[in-house]
Amino acid sequence: MDTNGDPNQPSSPNVRREVEEMQEMSTLRRRNNANSGNGVIDEEEEIYTLSVEQVFESKSVPSWKEQLTIRAFVVAFFLAVLFSVIVMKLNLTTGIIPSLNVSAGLLGFFFVRLWTGLLEKFGMLRQPFTRQENTVIQTAVVAAYGLAFSGGFGSYLFGMSSRVADQAPEAKDAKDIKDPQLTWMIGFMFCVSFIGLFALVPLRKIMIIDYKLIYPSGTATSHLINGFHTPEGTKLAKKQVKMLGKFFVGSFLWGFFQWFYTGGDDCGFTSFPTLGLEAYTRKFYFDFSSTYVGVGMICPYIVNLSVLLGGVLSWGLMWPLIEKKSGDWYPDNISSTSLIGLQGYKVFISIAMILGDGLYNFGKVVFYMVLTVIKNIKKKRSDLPVSDSDGGDIIPKPTSFDDDKRTQLFLKDQIPLWFALCGYIGVAIISIVALPIIFKPLKWYYIAVAYVLAPVLAFCNAYGCGLTDWSLASTYGKLAIFCIGAWAGQGGGGVVAGLSSCGVMMSIVSTAADLMQDFKTGYMTLTSPKSMFVSQVIGTAMGCFIGPCVFWLFYKAFKDIGLSYSDYPAPYAIVYRNMAILGVDGLGSLPKNCLTLCFVFFAAAIVINLSRDLAPEKIRKYIPLPMAMAIPFYLGSYFAIDMCIGSLTLFIWEMVDKAKADQFASAVASGLICGDGLWTLPQSILSLAKVNPPICMKFLSRQMNERVDKYISTL
Amino acid sequence: MDTNGDPNQPSSPNVRREVEEMQEMSTLRRRNNANSGNGVIDEEEEIYTLSVEQVFESKSVPSWKEQLTIRAFVVAFFLAVLFSVIVMKLNLTTGIIPSLNVSAGLLGFFFVRLWTGLLEKFGMLRQPFTRQENTVIQTAVVAAYGLAFSGGFGSYLFGMSSRVADQAPEAKDAKDIKDPQLTWMIGFMFCVSFIGLFALVPLRKIMIIDYKLIYPSGTATSHLINGFHTPEGTKLAKKQVKMLGKFFVGSFLWGFFQWFYTGGDDCGFTSFPTLGLEAYTRKFYFDFSSTYVGVGMICPYIVNLSVLLGGVLSWGLMWPLIEKKSGDWYPDNISSTSLIGLQGYKVFISIAMILGDGLYNFGKVVFYMVLTVIKNIKKKRSDLPVSDSDGGDIIPKPTSFDDDKRTQLFLKDQIPLWFALCGYIGVAIISIVALPIIFKPLKWYYIAVAYVLAPVLAFCNAYGCGLTDWSLASTYGKLAIFCIGAWAGQGGGGVVAGLSSCGVMMSIVSTAADLMQDFKTGYMTLTSPKSMFVSQVIGTAMGCFIGPCVFWLFYKAFKDIGLSYSDYPAPYAIVYRNMAILGVDGLGSLPKNCLTLCFVFFAAAIVINLSRDLAPEKIRKYIPLPMAMAIPFYLGSYFAIDMCIGSLTLFIWEMVDKAKADQFASAVASGLICGDGLWTLPQSILSLAKVNPPICMKFLSRQMNERVDKYISTL
Repeated sequence: MDTNGDPNQPSSPNVRREVEEMQEMSTLRRRNNANSGNGVIDEEEEIYTLSVEQVFESKSVPSWKEQLTIRAFVVAFFLAVLFSVIVMKLNLTTGIIPSLNVSAGLLGFFFVRLWTGLLEKFGMLRQPFTRQENTVIQTAVVAAYGLAFSGGFGSYLFGMSSRVADQAPEAKDAKDIKDPQLTWMIGFMFCVSFIGLFALVPLRKIMIIDYKLIYPSGTATSHLINGFHTPEGTKLAKKQVKMLGKFFVGSFLWGFFQWFYTGGDDCGFTSFPTLGLEAYTRKFYFDFSSTYVGVGMICPYIVNLSVLLGGVLSWGLMWPLIEKKSGDWYPDNISSTSLIGLQGYKVFISIAMILGDGLYNFGKVVFYMVLTVIKNIKKKRSDLPVSDSDGGDIIPKPTSFDDDKRTQLFLKDQIPLWFALCGYIGVAIISIVALPIIFKPLKWYYIAVAYVLAPVLAFCNAYGCGLTDWSLASTYGKLAIFCIGAWAGQGGGGVVAGLSSCGVMMSIVSTAADLMQDFKTGYMTLTSPKSMFVSQVIGTAMGCFIGPCVFWLFYKAFKDIGLSYSDYPAPYAIVYRNMAILGVDGLGSLPKNCLTLCFVFFAAAIVINLSRDLAPEKIRKYIPLPMAMAIPFYLGSYFAIDMCIGSLTLFIWEMVDKAKADQFASAVASGLICGDGLWTLPQSILSLAKVNPPICMKFLSRQMNERVDKYISTL
Repeated sequence: MDTNGDPNQPSSPNVRREVEEMQEMSTLRRRNNANSGNGVIDEEEEIYTLSVEQVFESKSVPSWKEQLTIRAFVVAFFLAVLFSVIVMKLNLTTGIIPSLNVSAGLLGFFFVRLWTGLLEKFGMLRQPFTRQENTVIQTAVVAAYGLAFSGGFGSYLFGMSSRVADQAPEAKDAKDIKDPQLTWMIGFMFCVSFIGLFALVPLRKIMIIDYKLIYPSGTATSHLINGFHTPEGTKLAKKQVKMLGKFFVGSFLWGFFQWFYTGGDDCGFTSFPTLGLEAYTRKFYFDFSSTYVGVGMICPYIVNLSVLLGGVLSWGLMWPLIEKKSGDWYPDNISSTSLIGLQGYKVFISIAMILGDGLYNFGKVVFYMVLTVIKNIKKKRSDLPVSDSDGGDIIPKPTSFDDDKRTQLFLKDQIPLWFALCGYIGVAIISIVALPIIFKPLKWYYIAVAYVLAPVLAFCNAYGCGLTDWSLASTYGKLAIFCIGAWAGQGGGGVVAGLSSCGVMMSIVSTAADLMQDFKTGYMTLTSPKSMFVSQVIGTAMGCFIGPCVFWLFYKAFKDIGLSYSDYPAPYAIVYRNMAILGVDGLGSLPKNCLTLCFVFFAAAIVINLSRDLAPEKIRKYIPLPMAMAIPFYLGSYFAIDMCIGSLTLFIWEMVDKAKADQFASAVASGLICGDGLWTLPQSILSLAKVNPPICMKFLSRQMNERVDKYISTL
């Protein structure tokens, strides 16, 4: 799971337990591996009666060029568009983005299968559909839609726009504003997105084979793909795809149906005061979004409950209390979106909590990494960085048939070191020249410094991600905001400099982690690293176009994007901008007591995280995640209620029929998310074509309704 | 299924096939007998490996007094209230009332089981729960809630009120109006409801044992009750009750949830323009009523489709066309509820179709009865009135163990002939004295004539019902409206005289048929006729109170009952009143071309019925039922859409899992109907207590919404 804020759950000295907990939490992954036991953690646990590669032994492995087919990239393109739309929507609504790898895997399999099935019927199939090809699709899609997130359309990039700037307290300076334009966004994406690919390529052998890092998402995806391509697996996969399809169609039609009733502001099901009008004004309502019900089914229970807790704490308790201080703590007659008023508390307290959580987790990862490296050096064995749960002893693993076969194929197709180096330096030079043209305040030496430091941070992130599955990209990005923002200063357009350097840093760090996840998937599906790399490059190139175009579609179609009361509040855009302002200006402009509260919540985030790590297992799983709690501070609880309904559904389903829930829950959730996400596409096209929904479903209090009825009868 | 209009599906010369078709249509009954094969038609087909009574032989049959327990009548009372509320709601919304016997059976079993289960736990159970006791409950409940229908609260009785009179074209004369009052309604019910019980008691041996009439509903109920009380049956019954309970609660909560959004006219889910605003004005929309979804699941597919067809024909085609003639065919600037305008076409065309259907079916039953009686006389055998499907030969049935046992017990407890005669004459005298006091225009000799003719008509109805399960009560009632109405004439208050004599006639005829159904149930569950009779009397007495009280509750709670645009339009009230006016006045006052159209539809009803009877089996099941088509003529198609959604659900369910659908569909439907029905009770109490729902969910066109938003912002 990515968020535009900080991820959480990195490692403690006792990594094994930590990772097991991750797996406990990530029900998604566990579910997909239901048929292969606990296969995620330990390779040796994957062994069936026959090991995976023994089952596949009859199938020959195609050469790396054969793995790259045109049909794969055609399918990848369409899926990349679909998932970019979904990610963009999530970016712009709440910023909570669940792992869509499984959906991508399922749909990729489904479409190619459909294609090859058709060709086979007409006897025209020249090349069978292999798991390597499936991996290639998966890789390209993930690379492409990953850019919809790391491109910062819901955070740093959009944070530069005048619309977001209007809501910030800062005096608006032309230097501090850069409004979105399709051209410069595509250019920017091309400059920053490729460099991450080169940064870690040389280290892949160390990460995957020597360190045997886990990369839970990558491993899960490889299990999925391996499962699809074994004879028994295909049967289950077909059922899963069918289930996904049903919910996909249902969710799409539901979105379509809802659309008809949204002919005006505050109309339709998204404004349904399900818990009453009073609760609605406090943003407690179920908004009938199948996306977030699906997200709730994928996210671990604790995430959903943390979000709800955060919502209750903030919108149910704190904001009403602070509101009573209106006129004392902050000026009385002020616009509700002004950061000098109540809105300021909402934004800065959530920033404080996100930063506290991020800082804690960053420290934790660094601490753990140093510890592990020291241990490894001491033991003079480098093949097993994962310590045993009893307290640090390293167990040598036996090499299995699978390991041998995989290692052999992984090492066969080498990407030469000089190629990676030249690539990195070449792209860096292009960036250093081009980026200052796009962003005036971003001096060339800021970028140069960033690119010197980046590989180290990218390594940190890829390593942490391999252990915990949480990419810390946004944390490194925030670091860049503060450092470069302060360096540039107020006169030098520090806000834009900070935000754009955040983009530079985030792209490298995030791409590096993604790439390594993919290498893990490739390793386990016998896909050549070369074809993986080519696929990543092609996927990234697609993403550089698709990401900005999709954002542009949203930006043009929904006029009030980025405004806090709209359907697309883009919460992190304003959060990021305010972080940049904070970095440049210091903490002067905050309303009364806001800074105190910020410190309290900053500390609380650290304390809660610490207690999560120190508490015994039993209690730990009931301690909320500060990161998840912070999200509704700004947005309200409506999506928390959606997510909890998703959780509840899953919970009941697991109670009624555990086996079925384990097999199908992620398919159902994916269907819900993808269907609703796809509907966004025609919806925004309708909106661009100025086709407006015909009906407004309006909710009025009885008294207001009487007045309105009287008014209508006079018309 | 009863409707306030005419029932359909009586017999043709080839009765056996007809009855089989009935059984084909009445999926409800078939479903409840899934475990006993085709047990409805032929007694000998009911034999399991052991016959029913052999299975029950270990259980002794309690004496008739032991069958009548206090707990039975306590349970019966509560169920009678529940079902009276449901029937009243159906009466006042569309007039379509599905068979609720199964629900009553299930719930009766459930409650007594609960009671005895509790007592058993504490070791306090003195008397075990027998199937005879279950039958007694069933009988009392059916007798009581039957009066909510035959009491005419949605038809003749309410048709006398000034509110309905205001919508009729007739000049309002004090003589022609009798507004509802709790006191006289209860008095009226007591006068007319008991006489039916005495009318046919002497003939029960002939009907049940000699003629071996089928009484599908009665037989189905007895199968249900027998099923509950066999060891295997109880298990399935428990599952069914659980399923019913789930949907009961769900439907109740859904009703509760909906309530919050109905704070004004045209607010809430019942006004949801599901198919768009244009379709909504033409009354095509899904109104989220779980009651009618449930009704749709119980009613045969052809009924639901006929209703939909009628709706499309009238509201989709005819009314818009006639509307175009506004100013030519009828005056332009006239209230939309005036019968001289479009409303007149709606009301009178549906009356014509209902009358055509009724007349045809009446003729058919008489024709068939005469034919059978003649045949029986010819063959000089009276034990087998049902002719063979090949063409009239009578097959002597072997007497089985079950038959012997049942006959023996059925004949044991005799109700003496003198008792029945004295009862009939006594009650008749009371009525003749009392009714003219309640209804001034109803002269004593009208009633006397009615009571002389009634037993013959009651016999006809009970006989027809025994064959086809359709009670023709309302047809006989309409006959009375026309005859007595014309006799009394305009000066003599013919409208009230006609409507009240309709009540007199309908009560006898309907009660007689119900009673005979119950005797059949009693016969098959070894329940004593004496206890059945006592139970009927007690149930009727309950109904005489409960019916008027429930109506009074609705009448006081929902102020716009009986108005065509309201939630409770009571469609048959105005239909019945207009029939009475027609009987008194003739056809003079109808708008232009209305009479022609009436004749066309009257003839069409007869032709369609005829074609149903003459067409080969394959085509017949696709020919619609004119009676069902006529209902939406006045009301619109919204409930037809509900019912079709119920049908569709059932259809898909049967496709997916036939066995489960057969076992549980009626339980689900019952749950939906009962839950929503029960919610009506607290809803009307809330309404009486002036607790109004807080929110209005309003549907406005986009343009209107813009204006309203502007208006609201000026407040």
